Amino acid sequence: MKDLSPTVTTGPLPASRRVWQKGVLYPDIRVPLREIDVHPSAGEPPVTVYDSSGPYTDPDAKPSIEGGLPRLREGWVAARKDTRTYDGRHVKPEDNGFAEGMRLVPEFPVRHRPRRATGDCAVTQMAYARAGVVTPEMEFVAIRENLGRRAAKDALALDGEDFGAEIPDFITPEFVRDEVAKGRAIIPANINHPEAEPMAIGRNFLVKINANIGNSAVTSSMAEEVEKMVWATRWGADTVMDLSTGRNIHNIRDWIIRNSPVPIGTVPLYQALEKSAALPKISPGRSIATRWSNRQNRGGLFHHPCGVRLHMIPMTVGRVTGIVSRGGSIMAKWCLHHHRESFLYDHFNEICDIARAYDVSFSLGDGLRPGSIADANDEAQFAELKTLGELTQIAWAKDCQVMIEGPGHVPMHKIKANMDKQLETCGEAPFYTLGPLTTDIAPGYDHITSGIGAAMIGWFGTAMLCYVTPKEHLGLPDRDDVKTGVITYKIAAHAADLAKGHPAARIRDDALSRARFEFRWEDQFNLSLDPETARSMHDETLPKEAHKTAHFCSMCGPKFCSMRISHDIRAEAQKVGMARMAEKFREGGALYVPLNSEEEA
Amino acid sequence: MKDLSPTVTTGPLPASRRVWQKGVLYPDIRVPLREIDVHPSAGEPPVTVYDSSGPYTDPDAKPSIEGGLPRLREGWVAARKDTRTYDGRHVKPEDNGFAEGMRLVPEFPVRHRPRRATGDCAVTQMAYARAGVVTPEMEFVAIRENLGRRAAKDALALDGEDFGAEIPDFITPEFVRDEVAKGRAIIPANINHPEAEPMAIGRNFLVKINANIGNSAVTSSMAEEVEKMVWATRWGADTVMDLSTGRNIHNIRDWIIRNSPVPIGTVPLYQALEKSAALPKISPGRSIATRWSNRQNRGGLFHHPCGVRLHMIPMTVGRVTGIVSRGGSIMAKWCLHHHRESFLYDHFNEICDIARAYDVSFSLGDGLRPGSIADANDEAQFAELKTLGELTQIAWAKDCQVMIEGPGHVPMHKIKANMDKQLETCGEAPFYTLGPLTTDIAPGYDHITSGIGAAMIGWFGTAMLCYVTPKEHLGLPDRDDVKTGVITYKIAAHAADLAKGHPAARIRDDALSRARFEFRWEDQFNLSLDPETARSMHDETLPKEAHKTAHFCSMCGPKFCSMRISHDIRAEAQKVGMARMAEKFREGGALYVPLNSEEEA
Repeated sequence: MKDLSPTVTTGPLPASRRVWQKGVLYPDIRVPLREIDVHPSAGEPPVTVYDSSGPYTDPDAKPSIEGGLPRLREGWVAARKDTRTYDGRHVKPEDNGFAEGMRLVPEFPVRHRPRRATGDCAVTQMAYARAGVVTPEMEFVAIRENLGRRAAKDALALDGEDFGAEIPDFITPEFVRDEVAKGRAIIPANINHPEAEPMAIGRNFLVKINANIGNSAVTSSMAEEVEKMVWATRWGADTVMDLSTGRNIHNIRDWIIRNSPVPIGTVPLYQALEKSAALPKISPGRSIATRWSNRQNRGGLFHHPCGVRLHMIPMTVGRVTGIVSRGGSIMAKWCLHHHRESFLYDHFNEICDIARAYDVSFSLGDGLRPGSIADANDEAQFAELKTLGELTQIAWAKDCQVMIEGPGHVPMHKIKANMDKQLETCGEAPFYTLGPLTTDIAPGYDHITSGIGAAMIGWFGTAMLCYVTPKEHLGLPDRDDVKTGVITYKIAAHAADLAKGHPAARIRDDALSRARFEFRWEDQFNLSLDPETARSMHDETLPKEAHKTAHFCSMCGPKFCSMRISHDIRAEAQKVGMARMAEKFREGGALYVPLNSEEEA
Repeated sequence: MKDLSPTVTTGPLPASRRVWQKGVLYPDIRVPLREIDVHPSAGEPPVTVYDSSGPYTDPDAKPSIEGGLPRLREGWVAARKDTRTYDGRHVKPEDNGFAEGMRLVPEFPVRHRPRRATGDCAVTQMAYARAGVVTPEMEFVAIRENLGRRAAKDALALDGEDFGAEIPDFITPEFVRDEVAKGRAIIPANINHPEAEPMAIGRNFLVKINANIGNSAVTSSMAEEVEKMVWATRWGADTVMDLSTGRNIHNIRDWIIRNSPVPIGTVPLYQALEKSAALPKISPGRSIATRWSNRQNRGGLFHHPCGVRLHMIPMTVGRVTGIVSRGGSIMAKWCLHHHRESFLYDHFNEICDIARAYDVSFSLGDGLRPGSIADANDEAQFAELKTLGELTQIAWAKDCQVMIEGPGHVPMHKIKANMDKQLETCGEAPFYTLGPLTTDIAPGYDHITSGIGAAMIGWFGTAMLCYVTPKEHLGLPDRDDVKTGVITYKIAAHAADLAKGHPAARIRDDALSRARFEFRWEDQFNLSLDPETARSMHDETLPKEAHKTAHFCSMCGPKFCSMRISHDIRAEAQKVGMARMAEKFREGGALYVPLNSEEEA
């Protein structure tokens, strides 16, 4: 019972408040945003930013890990009267890999009755959207996405290259509905994860980021993974994928989901494999595919490597790095062993029936993504993408929400082709990529090799970027690695938003740059993605309080501060009527004015 | 005298040897390269990589900091018989900002007689190139740039998008000469810095990176700066800019230059300012411009913010962050104060006369680069670029070597315009950019915000990328920051080489990926840009020696290692004749083969 009481990081970020905006269509909904105050001397309003952190940053919320988060959407789901509760089955020893005694992570203390669709109706956001219904989830998303857009409307610089995306000046609930109905955006909103705050993944919304967590058979505990989830959302993770593969997979996941303010993705295949003695024993039948999904219907997103098919396996044999997706390699081995088509592919229709009964969104996995620069954009990769396009149509026919996973390792000049092919092949379903890593030569820095590719593919149209941490290829990320990965990907996503011309994206950049120019050091720290790191780096050399208003830093010292000199220039320019003077100069007036005698020495 | 004996980092990188390749035209030249050995089980030759580290990584070299590096090029310069030595003047108190006693950094112990051109002849690599002379420097560069290109010739994948660059399959000395003659590449090779190993900066060569070091009035010492220089080149810095602005500027620079295996850039304006009591007192005359340059002719590159002109200053007044270049803001203030044109601009011709007598290359500074996303690609920035283009022609007329500095802070969608305009405006003189930073919101992570922009602009054609460290905007980088900046920029430069289709770039990626796929952990570490970090991250969870050959890591554990499973697949595929089987499958043969009875349970 060692892991009973995980402690997680709580409390607001510096100068930040969690604020709430009410719905109009649904006056009861309260949409969280973060406001960052700036110093009164600036005479500027607070800067509003997207907030994925849930109640943990709200000093009034006092979340209890043993109790789980408030079930925000429970009433919304019930009010639709298209679901019923039922008795879930109890956890069995195999669900936790037969962990026992001290090694068994305890069950989550609170058991909620699960809920599913009545009859065979679809309870997905897509189904409602197609029926013309704007759900509370959709209004929530609309408010959340707009940030300070309305207030700053006049100042918005609509400047960007969006490669055919259709980003509106202002996001209405109706726009959200329309995007979801078209399959161009998803709102992962499993009815059995009502704690999650609704969010959208789509090309015409803010670029999102995902953090992978999860233990492995080698290392980590439940408490660590719960804290990693909270920690990741604190720094900006929009979704979290629990890729646990060790024992206790079921119980750890319960703790994570019940405490997560963001959608949780899972990989049913891993859990199945942990239960089985060996890979070939996984059965291909419909019942098993169904049962997997049934028992794992709590996360918002299923990762299914459904696109890996038997005939594609020979295409991978000549690769430098074979198949690097865990799920992909497992399915390939299964196919090969049985000389059969993938059961996930064959039974995808039935899996969709599960998904529509819970509103589980699909993350259709690129099991054949390239694992090295040498393998990028090869036959296997694009063959799978084509299959994922076919599966998208099947899912959409069942009103299921879908996003498509993408590479991987791709050199810069081959990145755009991935986005273009995905849009064409998968009917504009949101793209969700891992990086891509733009070179293989920097293990230990793959957050950076991939952050480059992520920013670019985000700009080109990828809706969500799956982070890569410094530990990629080397080991399981710890808490510090998770933060570094999240911040790096927030940078990539924000750089993409700026380049796409997202109307509100530049508000934060401009506010921070003004703070920088005006030597409001505290504001510069507070407006940054990671105030703690910015402050501590500054304070290494200039720790005193007085330095927080100093008109220089240790980089250049007082005499050489260009910003300070710029202020002098501005002041002087105002004094002498610079523009007029420069005009005169250009007209060929007196080029040289008399100098003091000391000069020309 | 506290700083008398700096200690610097020496010794080879893991599994690496400094090897030498002889010249053909000049049989006496020995060009250093680094060979990284791989495990014998791989059956592969060592991987050859570019080596900027100088004798410090050579266990036989035993460099003495008090003595300085061997003067590699002294004989080459003398053999050309177009230079003479002369008595340099002694250091004066004002050269070191009047530092005294304990505060005075001692002079470098060895004084070499300086050398300059005989008469007014040009002793620049460009002058020789235009005269059809292939210098030893050019052959050195050719050998250095080729890496393993010839050996791996057959395996080279010529695959990339080079946006009009002309990268040859193999670099000959004649190609180097031609590029230098055209001004498309420079070889910074000051005749008074013969310790530096020749290197080229140009669009058709490997993308280079620069590390800035230098103390400020607030912090750092000579010993720290010398070690930062050695440390930066150890990790791959191709040039180092000494941006020191505090006292002791002259003596610190001497220690750095005498020990540097790479060209050192300097900013004469800073030194002038340290000597003057106040900015307006800097005199505009020809003599002063001349004297500055004369006294600072030891570095290979002059940074001159010559493009900042009086009429441009009003263009900066409405900016969010004004002028953020130190040199640029100083010149702007000077122009404004005197209501006169910049003396660096007015007297550029005479400055060129100095440069050609020593072969100092110009780094024509973008004093008006944007300091925020809001200011990117504005009127001021491009007005200055136009002036830099004019100055390039003046310099070329004097046979002086030139590169052009670029931004700054630029969102992704505005980066390519910078490259395109620079090529067009500056006659294909090499572009040298700071980042650019693709967002303003991440102080503490600006190596990453800028690494994204750097990789992209490097791909588009920038010849050298000036690094940005995590401390940018916050303080003076320390040794760790320098390393992080260098590694990040090596990633950006290499990603750019890959995307441009540099013929030898992928050799290292492929070798590392093969090592990864074959679980040669040691090789994976050794082939990486930072073996120490990769190894220590791996060892955090799996420290034992046995784990260095384990077919898994802590990320996925043994059961879920996709690479291990891929090996199984490959083995099985070979057994059953996979391709044939898949073919049959696609023809619509028996889709389902009989299964064991335990399945379909």
